[in-house]
Amino acid sequence: MQIHYRGYEANDPRIKPAAGFGVDRATDMPDEMDVLVVGTGPAASVVTAQLSRFPSINARVVERRPGRLEVGQADGIQARSVETFQAFGFAGEVIEEAYRNVEMCFWKPDHDDPSIIVRTSRAPDDATGMSEFPHIYVNQSRILDYFLRDAVRAPGRIVPDYGVQFVDCTIDQDAPYPVAARVEYVTGPRAGEMRTVRAKYLVGGDGARSRVRASLGHGLHGEAALHAWGVMDVLANTDFPDIQLKCSIQSHDAGNILLIPREGGYLVRIYVDLGEIDELDGGAVRSTPVEAIIAKANRILHPYSLDVRAVTWWSVYEVAHRIADGFDDVPTDLVGIQTPRAFIMGDACHTHSAKAGQGMNVSIQDGFNLAWKLAAVLEGRAPETLLSTYAAERRVVAQNLIDFDKEWSEMMARPVDSWEDPTELERYYVATLEFPAGFMTQYAPSMITLGTEDHDLAAGFPVGKRFKSAEVIRRADNRWRHLGHFHEADGRWRLYVFADSAAPALSGTPTAEFADWWSTDPASPLVRFTPVGGDSDAVFDTKVIYQQDYTLVEPSAVPNAFKPVKTPLGLIDINQIFAAGHGRDIFRDREISRDGAIVVVRPDQYVAAVLPLSAREELASFFDGHMLTPVETSNPASDQDVPTITIAERTAL
Amino acid sequence: MQIHYRGYEANDPRIKPAAGFGVDRATDMPDEMDVLVVGTGPAASVVTAQLSRFPSINARVVERRPGRLEVGQADGIQARSVETFQAFGFAGEVIEEAYRNVEMCFWKPDHDDPSIIVRTSRAPDDATGMSEFPHIYVNQSRILDYFLRDAVRAPGRIVPDYGVQFVDCTIDQDAPYPVAARVEYVTGPRAGEMRTVRAKYLVGGDGARSRVRASLGHGLHGEAALHAWGVMDVLANTDFPDIQLKCSIQSHDAGNILLIPREGGYLVRIYVDLGEIDELDGGAVRSTPVEAIIAKANRILHPYSLDVRAVTWWSVYEVAHRIADGFDDVPTDLVGIQTPRAFIMGDACHTHSAKAGQGMNVSIQDGFNLAWKLAAVLEGRAPETLLSTYAAERRVVAQNLIDFDKEWSEMMARPVDSWEDPTELERYYVATLEFPAGFMTQYAPSMITLGTEDHDLAAGFPVGKRFKSAEVIRRADNRWRHLGHFHEADGRWRLYVFADSAAPALSGTPTAEFADWWSTDPASPLVRFTPVGGDSDAVFDTKVIYQQDYTLVEPSAVPNAFKPVKTPLGLIDINQIFAAGHGRDIFRDREISRDGAIVVVRPDQYVAAVLPLSAREELASFFDGHMLTPVETSNPASDQDVPTITIAERTAL
Repeated sequence: MQIHYRGYEANDPRIKPAAGFGVDRATDMPDEMDVLVVGTGPAASVVTAQLSRFPSINARVVERRPGRLEVGQADGIQARSVETFQAFGFAGEVIEEAYRNVEMCFWKPDHDDPSIIVRTSRAPDDATGMSEFPHIYVNQSRILDYFLRDAVRAPGRIVPDYGVQFVDCTIDQDAPYPVAARVEYVTGPRAGEMRTVRAKYLVGGDGARSRVRASLGHGLHGEAALHAWGVMDVLANTDFPDIQLKCSIQSHDAGNILLIPREGGYLVRIYVDLGEIDELDGGAVRSTPVEAIIAKANRILHPYSLDVRAVTWWSVYEVAHRIADGFDDVPTDLVGIQTPRAFIMGDACHTHSAKAGQGMNVSIQDGFNLAWKLAAVLEGRAPETLLSTYAAERRVVAQNLIDFDKEWSEMMARPVDSWEDPTELERYYVATLEFPAGFMTQYAPSMITLGTEDHDLAAGFPVGKRFKSAEVIRRADNRWRHLGHFHEADGRWRLYVFADSAAPALSGTPTAEFADWWSTDPASPLVRFTPVGGDSDAVFDTKVIYQQDYTLVEPSAVPNAFKPVKTPLGLIDINQIFAAGHGRDIFRDREISRDGAIVVVRPDQYVAAVLPLSAREELASFFDGHMLTPVETSNPASDQDVPTITIAERTAL
Repeated sequence: MQIHYRGYEANDPRIKPAAGFGVDRATDMPDEMDVLVVGTGPAASVVTAQLSRFPSINARVVERRPGRLEVGQADGIQARSVETFQAFGFAGEVIEEAYRNVEMCFWKPDHDDPSIIVRTSRAPDDATGMSEFPHIYVNQSRILDYFLRDAVRAPGRIVPDYGVQFVDCTIDQDAPYPVAARVEYVTGPRAGEMRTVRAKYLVGGDGARSRVRASLGHGLHGEAALHAWGVMDVLANTDFPDIQLKCSIQSHDAGNILLIPREGGYLVRIYVDLGEIDELDGGAVRSTPVEAIIAKANRILHPYSLDVRAVTWWSVYEVAHRIADGFDDVPTDLVGIQTPRAFIMGDACHTHSAKAGQGMNVSIQDGFNLAWKLAAVLEGRAPETLLSTYAAERRVVAQNLIDFDKEWSEMMARPVDSWEDPTELERYYVATLEFPAGFMTQYAPSMITLGTEDHDLAAGFPVGKRFKSAEVIRRADNRWRHLGHFHEADGRWRLYVFADSAAPALSGTPTAEFADWWSTDPASPLVRFTPVGGDSDAVFDTKVIYQQDYTLVEPSAVPNAFKPVKTPLGLIDINQIFAAGHGRDIFRDREISRDGAIVVVRPDQYVAAVLPLSAREELASFFDGHMLTPVETSNPASDQDVPTITIAERTAL
């Protein structure tokens, strides 16, 4: 947490001063706004938190519920989501509060007496070190709380407009606020009132029955058949020994359970498979009483029994694997010509089973992918074409998710007798763990992701995949840190300069020559795209990582490109210099060439490029493809305009 | 975090429902109260947070400032304090926010050119693994914020009464509210109003010029000479390479600096030694301007320079090593006869230099030591004699602190030329690190601490010292955890039952036999002192740790003594069962006998006893010495009185 650099911050450093639209934020929704977000689910909450960090953007969020979600819905949180929480500053709090999954147990009919179940195997959760973050379970409502708390703490101070339902919209490409949305107040004193508001962009995170999707004329397509589940959160006494462990439980002929332990040490969520049903069933399965689900769970658990003391939430639902035929409002034949004005995210564009614990997680990444792009365009830092990459990138992810989930849920639902190889389920689970953990996403080359030509220079940072953090020593305080954890959700691009093997020097090395170009050359993206008069790292967060032990790196030998200057005090920041030490060597851990490499990372933490230290034109043209030159409104002399020293009153002790 | 065991908690689990005096807590101070706390410094804040967890106690806290502390004062936080934050639930947040110290650097005059300083050595902060918690620096105001936030989140909902100054008090041992305290409103609409309020107990945490101390007739005694310091929090640019590291900087003839990096990556605190001064100096040194301190710092840092951009806080102060002649109101000749009604803590009873970073830390432990005892007495669980142990225990600690700090600050102030061995300062620093880290406190035998007769059964848990946590596997979720981190500041005693080498069994082993006695025998402290009708672990938190790998421990084979029952749902808690696994073996790490051992830990985390599994009479008489039998007001049949199942409404998805 970098604080105090503009002077002493006396209060909680997590609460930022209000700015822009966050100053005396209007309690009533205005008639016109930059962004209208529909819903406060996982995807919409991420967008809200991200946009609130850009207080020049007027974003409003409508939610038809009268207040926060209290209970129920998703609870599985993959490591990639926890990485994302880290970028928003609340991973530690969520981890403390959540159930942390370290081992999954598989229960099956006993070979000698199939009427009883026995534990047949255990699988560790992350045996290969996919992430330094854990796989956790906690109620979705808490995740929404954290994102929405972040939105209130951020300068934009965004609070959802509760009790407001999105009805429908029209889009007029030529209007200054192209989206005209009808909304209806459904609770509170204005209940029943209908309004039309106008926005530059519309973001639909309004669930599987999305009205935004309907307004855009899109449908969900996929399977006809529905799969039914009984799901319940229970507090229970039991002699089943693994009640607080994630378990797949397959009985001989009573059915299957997916058991998900929950936060707090007592609560468990039990998914009871109710089988495939015909869509023409008309929802009869939905009338299954909870007592029947409890009875079925007891039959599956035999010889153990479940004495349910409380059912704190439950549902019966049917789901099919389906995907929306469009993720934004651009017709297929205009892709690449017209830029989008409306987007859908999360369940609004992909539905699937809950078994792989993916819904909330993929939705969070939908939102993270979209929000920084919206901010860059609305702040005038990027062209509108950037927004076309949202649908292009996330549709692929959604399709992969559906394919994976189909296979996984089919396997979990399969009767025990039909398995040729009794260990197949565990083997599949272990072999494919990277997918549900969230790390299989790999964005294809585009205006914001380069090709893999120089991939060998940093093989541990595959282009298009999320930047996998590793430990380094920060030279300022000589403390080991996870390099990736400095990547906050602030919309900035990251440039990690892995230095060549020479000792740190101000000139005469490939690293120093790159640094000089990067910080001074008129063709350098840093020089071209950083607004004058602000922090010199406002657009690009440039960090250098030396191969040497930290005891051999002195800040005075490090080029200025890696020591940004902060307004208004002109403070020189020495926190962006890293090295090896105490057994930590990121060059080794991420297979980085000892000749050095440049790793470019997008604001949403995905690797955009791996380049040699000699790269100049490649960097210039890459950023030229999706950045706009800022209007120089500030005082260009401010770098030299050193303020007078400020001195506090003396305190008597 | 154990939650949901009384039903689903829909909100932030860190915010507990208000209860007792916390329900519609009176905004005006009442005329009579259980405890009057004076001050909101570190010691007083701990007491406030602890007492707020016992909402049957009416505690009020007066603070003469109009609101929270914003800046300045202490910033050094030792690992023992972070352990304590963990018990109050906010260690993770503080660590994220604070500077974390991993290495101290020593700078001295260059051998060849004494006019310049050079780095001569580095010392790691905790090379021996004293604690799993770090040594951190963060402004004192934030620590107070966290404790006071905890007080508001706890059921008692205690908020300080700001703008109220303690004036003086009288004590009448025979009155129902023995302490009559005069307080004056100093800010707000009632400014100038004087009131007399009455309390059962008075707790003075009102600093070095404590009025509570004066009212009790105590003085501070010790050195006559004063040592002067210039101290400033600055934002600066510098070519000194270790500006973000803890440094001792000794110049040839310009003086010495203690450099303390601070939270946020930019701020540093600089202590500049201004030398010994005579008390009769009359405070002339206090008029030293900050410019003179900056100039002196620059001379010490030569050849480096410090370009101060902002001074965010500064002071010049003099301090002597002094200790109060009494820590409570009991006259020396009545110790052991009369029980105390008033206490002083923190700077009110010990003053010393800031150099060892001890002030806030020792104060926190003063408060932690006192508060649980007050709660136990006021809730009728302990006799008033328990309160005598506060002064007995903390006076020894204060004297040790003053002895240590005297030696350390004398060494740091000594001119470079006067050292016989130039490495002596570093060697002393490394050799004595356990003291400033807070782990040298060892309480002597008393009514709440037994002797060391059976110490060999668990040599890694020295009796009288704080329980040093180690990793175990919790059997419920098969996850490794720090055993000590389950010890929250809830006033409960801990009984860690380290099992004998037999497999878990319901009978026939020393562990099972102890368990049976502990949970069912009329002579057992658990049976005698646990109120009927509540949770069976309300007074004693009993945990069992098996030697076996966790895969060999099934909850059904574990005696009921280690599976408490929670009201009102009658939920059986399986979270108190631990084992070895994944390379973790607490028996090895803490040198516990393979025949088993019982380790008793006080509510303030200090080891009270190590006993064999055969212990019965020792436990019975130990707890008999400081516990009172509860009045059975509840329904004795409630254990059998299983409520009906509660079932939530079905949620449509």
